[in-house]
Amino acid sequence: MILTDSLLDFFLETREHTETICRPLAIEDYVVQPIVDVSPPKWHLGHTTWFFEEFILRPHAKGYTVFNEDFSYVFNSYYETVGERVVRSDRGNMSRPSVEKVYAYRTYVTNAMKNLFGKDQNQELNNLLEIGIHHEKQHQELLLTDIKYILGNNPLLPNYSETIKEHLPFSHQQEWISVDEGIYEIGHDSDSFCYDNELGRHKVFLHSYEISNTLVTNQEFIDFINDNGYQKFNLWHAEGWDWVTQNNITAPLYWHKIDGEWHHYTLNGLQKIDPNTPATHISYFEAFAFAQWKGCRLPTEFEWETAQQFFPWGQRWEWTESAYLPYPNYKKADGALGEYNGKFMVNQKVLRGGSVATPIKHTRATYRNFFQTNLRWQYTGLRLAK
Amino acid sequence: MILTDSLLDFFLETREHTETICRPLAIEDYVVQPIVDVSPPKWHLGHTTWFFEEFILRPHAKGYTVFNEDFSYVFNSYYETVGERVVRSDRGNMSRPSVEKVYAYRTYVTNAMKNLFGKDQNQELNNLLEIGIHHEKQHQELLLTDIKYILGNNPLLPNYSETIKEHLPFSHQQEWISVDEGIYEIGHDSDSFCYDNELGRHKVFLHSYEISNTLVTNQEFIDFINDNGYQKFNLWHAEGWDWVTQNNITAPLYWHKIDGEWHHYTLNGLQKIDPNTPATHISYFEAFAFAQWKGCRLPTEFEWETAQQFFPWGQRWEWTESAYLPYPNYKKADGALGEYNGKFMVNQKVLRGGSVATPIKHTRATYRNFFQTNLRWQYTGLRLAK
Amino acid sequence: MILTDSLLDFFLETREHTETICRPLAIEDYVVQPIVDVSPPKWHLGHTTWFFEEFILRPHAKGYTVFNEDFSYVFNSYYETVGERVVRSDRGNMSRPSVEKVYAYRTYVTNAMKNLFGKDQNQELNNLLEIGIHHEKQHQELLLTDIKYILGNNPLLPNYSETIKEHLPFSHQQEWISVDEGIYEIGHDSDSFCYDNELGRHKVFLHSYEISNTLVTNQEFIDFINDNGYQKFNLWHAEGWDWVTQNNITAPLYWHKIDGEWHHYTLNGLQKIDPNTPATHISYFEAFAFAQWKGCRLPTEFEWETAQQFFPWGQRWEWTESAYLPYPNYKKADGALGEYNGKFMVNQKVLRGGSVATPIKHTRATYRNFFQTNLRWQYTGLRLAK
Amino acid sequence: MILTDSLLDFFLETREHTETICRPLAIEDYVVQPIVDVSPPKWHLGHTTWFFEEFILRPHAKGYTVFNEDFSYVFNSYYETVGERVVRSDRGNMSRPSVEKVYAYRTYVTNAMKNLFGKDQNQELNNLLEIGIHHEKQHQELLLTDIKYILGNNPLLPNYSETIKEHLPFSHQQEWISVDEGIYEIGHDSDSFCYDNELGRHKVFLHSYEISNTLVTNQEFIDFINDNGYQKFNLWHAEGWDWVTQNNITAPLYWHKIDGEWHHYTLNGLQKIDPNTPATHISYFEAFAFAQWKGCRLPTEFEWETAQQFFPWGQRWEWTESAYLPYPNYKKADGALGEYNGKFMVNQKVLRGGSVATPIKHTRATYRNFFQTNLRWQYTGLRLAK
Repeated sequence: MILTDSLLDFFLETREHTETICRPLAIEDYVVQPIVDVSPPKWHLGHTTWFFEEFILRPHAKGYTVFNEDFSYVFNSYYETVGERVVRSDRGNMSRPSVEKVYAYRTYVTNAMKNLFGKDQNQELNNLLEIGIHHEKQHQELLLTDIKYILGNNPLLPNYSETIKEHLPFSHQQEWISVDEGIYEIGHDSDSFCYDNELGRHKVFLHSYEISNTLVTNQEFIDFINDNGYQKFNLWHAEGWDWVTQNNITAPLYWHKIDGEWHHYTLNGLQKIDPNTPATHISYFEAFAFAQWKGCRLPTEFEWETAQQFFPWGQRWEWTESAYLPYPNYKKADGALGEYNGKFMVNQKVLRGGSVATPIKHTRATYRNFFQTNLRWQYTGLRLAK
Repeated sequence: MILTDSLLDFFLETREHTETICRPLAIEDYVVQPIVDVSPPKWHLGHTTWFFEEFILRPHAKGYTVFNEDFSYVFNSYYETVGERVVRSDRGNMSRPSVEKVYAYRTYVTNAMKNLFGKDQNQELNNLLEIGIHHEKQHQELLLTDIKYILGNNPLLPNYSETIKEHLPFSHQQEWISVDEGIYEIGHDSDSFCYDNELGRHKVFLHSYEISNTLVTNQEFIDFINDNGYQKFNLWHAEGWDWVTQNNITAPLYWHKIDGEWHHYTLNGLQKIDPNTPATHISYFEAFAFAQWKGCRLPTEFEWETAQQFFPWGQRWEWTESAYLPYPNYKKADGALGEYNGKFMVNQKVLRGGSVATPIKHTRATYRNFFQTNLRWQYTGLRLAK
Repeated sequence: MILTDSLLDFFLETREHTETICRPLAIEDYVVQPIVDVSPPKWHLGHTTWFFEEFILRPHAKGYTVFNEDFSYVFNSYYETVGERVVRSDRGNMSRPSVEKVYAYRTYVTNAMKNLFGKDQNQELNNLLEIGIHHEKQHQELLLTDIKYILGNNPLLPNYSETIKEHLPFSHQQEWISVDEGIYEIGHDSDSFCYDNELGRHKVFLHSYEISNTLVTNQEFIDFINDNGYQKFNLWHAEGWDWVTQNNITAPLYWHKIDGEWHHYTLNGLQKIDPNTPATHISYFEAFAFAQWKGCRLPTEFEWETAQQFFPWGQRWEWTESAYLPYPNYKKADGALGEYNGKFMVNQKVLRGGSVATPIKHTRATYRNFFQTNLRWQYTGLRLAK
Repeated sequence: MILTDSLLDFFLETREHTETICRPLAIEDYVVQPIVDVSPPKWHLGHTTWFFEEFILRPHAKGYTVFNEDFSYVFNSYYETVGERVVRSDRGNMSRPSVEKVYAYRTYVTNAMKNLFGKDQNQELNNLLEIGIHHEKQHQELLLTDIKYILGNNPLLPNYSETIKEHLPFSHQQEWISVDEGIYEIGHDSDSFCYDNELGRHKVFLHSYEISNTLVTNQEFIDFINDNGYQKFNLWHAEGWDWVTQNNITAPLYWHKIDGEWHHYTLNGLQKIDPNTPATHISYFEAFAFAQWKGCRLPTEFEWETAQQFFPWGQRWEWTESAYLPYPNYKKADGALGEYNGKFMVNQKVLRGGSVATPIKHTRATYRNFFQTNLRWQYTGLRLAK
């Protein structure tokens, strides 16, 4: 358990970082929601604040006055326990509360939290605070990828920032790491923070396997395109093939072919694709089809976790073949916080690793991210196994 | 034909009035599009500007430099002749160009127009200018009703302005005006401006009829609701009944029953309904069902035009029983401007009159407004005939 | 009023003719519903029978025992007054009652009707009988066009019959009939049967016009296709253009281009198109675009009715420019039969004439058929006016 | 490997059994498709026949004449390799080929197969034949459940047969079977037939667990309903809860509450529910929610396979918690037959066991059935674990 002082610092740092991410935005950018999966930045700012108000201040801070009773309706995401909420697809239809008011809400709640944790410390509150901080960090990642979608979907393709780098330098030679068959331990095992879905450290038996030390690159993905990978139905799942044909998918998200050359939208604007950086913005369906085409497969999350110490990771969230399921003896928390993870454990795939959008201290070797198989607005990539 | 000086004044007045309508808005309010029929205020500001640039400056102003070539794609509404455009339902997904940039675009184009009409006057240009002005006036009305929808659909129900009045004082006694059967002339017949769909003054034979001097009031509509008018299928068209049941319609748009009393959202915020003002925000389907319930009917647009001199109008657009069809010998204009009216002449109903949102000098006795039968975000009301 | 004896004969003839239409069918053909607009033949057989049972036998035949109480639910079409019914789109999902049982139902009801009208004659019953007969005749037309759709939509393109002729010989020279401006009378005006929507004979003023003595031919439609009529947006209504692009429409329904030559599915199977017979199976949208392309227009239903004595008609239902609206002083009948026509008087177009599928004695100069603007599985054609 | 003689007998038996299942049907029952998941019985008869023609007779029987070239288009299910096919949702729109013709097709192909296997035996052909037989057996199960849906969805609720029994007598006491932690072997391991998805016998590590010897009963499901299990969102997955609310689910499929008592449609018609027989026709979502309510969970497929020798099974297909994924070293077959299983290995759940609709010799301890999480027209039940 982190001591409260540093925890409070961690809280304040986190709150500030969220606002730093938004600094390059115009007011208008805070408001729109081009697809249902993307939330307006304004909503992220408000929702992460509401989380502290709803789960900490309202029940635990004596004399606390709620900033605005309507905000519970406006900024609840999916907690059925907590009551009615704006339908997700309506988030981009709400011009009010204004951005200014949402920032005022942030300041109000941050101050009330400082106040509370300045006097009223105990283990239960600290646990809640830690969850709230990690919750906000999760939203920081979504915030950045949602901003990318909002700008990258705009016909003017505006820059977000000149300085942010989506593609870190990387110069490893591709090699296969071999792992012997045997019993391995999986899951979180320390006092440091983790989500409930990582708990219940347990044994799995793995048959011997090989896993690549590097991520698949843009050049390899261009080869797949050039070999008509998007037209070969037998590389795809039946459901993936329907997705390709119904949505007329022919390349990763944000890719544009201009005068015969592949470009992609990045947070620095439209750029030529660097063939040697890891491919990204692909769905699980595309990751699977690519692996089939290579005569390989995706690793399971257990294979990934077992081998992760032997390769660098953290640039892309990596699709695995594993369905998102509870570990043996998984227990969901009581009350509204029990809705955090467990209720999504069906029809999604686990991603492992972390990405350029992941805030520091937010991922770890046991972290389990998860998305539906058709989504690709996150920085999703792939690593091969065989 | 108006002399150019006063036409130029008319132009400048109109440009300014559009911006006056937007003055009470927050930046965020300019961006959203809660339903496909509503356009973001930002889009109206840009589109009315693009109209002058595309149809007057680009072809006729020597040496004119287009403000931004991408804006043609962004701000074209439905002119297929003029090329590709943003899909209507995507207008609310675009945070850029920013509101500030759109105002700069307005200033740039207004100045270029002043310049052009300061030196290069001729009949053809004046005709185009006049159309452009009236086009912008049409959008002023939509702008105000779209703003109402944006704010009235927000859970916080914010005020637009304290001073605007949706309901003008009115104290006429309801009476029936009788009109004898005979041949009457319909359509525009003077040198003043009108749209192509009003032209072709022609004769119609009308059987004798009676038409009410007053509009149906909120109290009458409450009586209809209380008599279960929304539950009696035999008052409705089959298509209207489907609309009622599928959308669970039980009252006009913006009506809320709070503690047993009817309120409605207005541009001054949520208010108790005044029983004696004209009912508004009803669809054609509702207007028709109400008339059936009263044992009356809606007037045709010919009956309305023939009798309009005998009653006050201009508070509500009034649904008629007439389908929106071309008058005998209707000719649509050449080129892109030919797309203005004619291509909508199917499956819509004519509305006559004008509303509190209609700019001055914009409506007249021969004006033909038109909407689909399910729409009700305009200030739509009804007048009975028999 | 027809005397009862001949009315009873008319009834029996009509009942038999319905069954004659079904004679070429396989049992399987009676069951399917490839699109929601088409009903299974089995359903037509049952529904026309239920109409007599529900509106005549049940209320008026003393001691009559209903054949099967469930059939009211199964065979009601749209009469809300009469209670719950199978959703229209589910008609093709019901294998039972079997075809054999439906024929038994027909015999049972026909016999009970014979019985009733053998003893209990009066004006009210005769009126109901007459409506029931005409109702069944309307369904005979739908039955034949639904059968055509069922077979013509099957990949095996089976013949319905060798003997039926869709295209009657025709050899008139195209000429323009001129009609002077003036007041004309419109609507039904005799003791013979008509529907409520034809009643209320009334005056209309027509400006002078010309109308073609012949229908547009297949050759003319091929010329329209060859001139890229389906690709020229400015010939179409905005709604029509959406229909064309969303459904990828490039020719009339049932047309197939095989080895460079146009064929169409007919009730005699797939055949080469005869260029000199009237075009058919086109939507209102197509009829309108074709007329625009010719520099002409569609006649109104009033123009058609006024001029019909001067040209042959009855091969194709002819689209008019008129929206389907009530005549002045239109009154709908009381009770369930009031649902027959009036509730469809919105967002549909009037068709005049009759077609090769129309049973004898079923159409007349004042008959008003009506369909939505996108439908084309009826034998719909067009006649030009200017 | 089975010797050819008995394999040919097995083939003939299987062909005959398919027809036996259809014997109680009326011709009309062969044709309809009330939901997209259900195929018309006629289609099953044709498709299982086409499988032999396409994969055995066409490539391997010298001089074989295809029965009808169009049938490949009509009866292909999902084999992209083999070419174009009727869209799945259109299967119920095709009245032709007639049932009689489909039976003629069956006889023709069965005879050609007899002929071929009377002279031309070899290992490759035998392997194909074996797959074809098991393919037809799989369709026998679907055929029966599709028939149940067709009749059970009909408002007349007709009987299929008096003699078939959906509920076998069962009198075991509920007990928990304990299994120790350790490494277990999973997957098929003998010369007898199995599908490719069962192959690759491999090791898994299981933590200790308990599994019930009996299936959940109707009485337990009624208790769940009575305790408002369908209204408690926290028992459900988020996706399951959406399914419940959007489809207004309040009980298993085919359940009707009549005068306060639960009935269900069975192949013997509508019957009172026997509280002591296993619950069936539930989706994975319902199975999961029920287990949550009991404070238990569903077993994984590995737990099930390891323990199956200790409990009776075969009455209901049993939902497991396992996602349908490839076993380690899974290899899909070459060519069209490679499309059999592998391409469905995403977003589905494994079911284990077998049901009253499963043909004899068709299931085994390693058999992996799989369906989407919302489907419930199969005889699906559940067994608890903890």
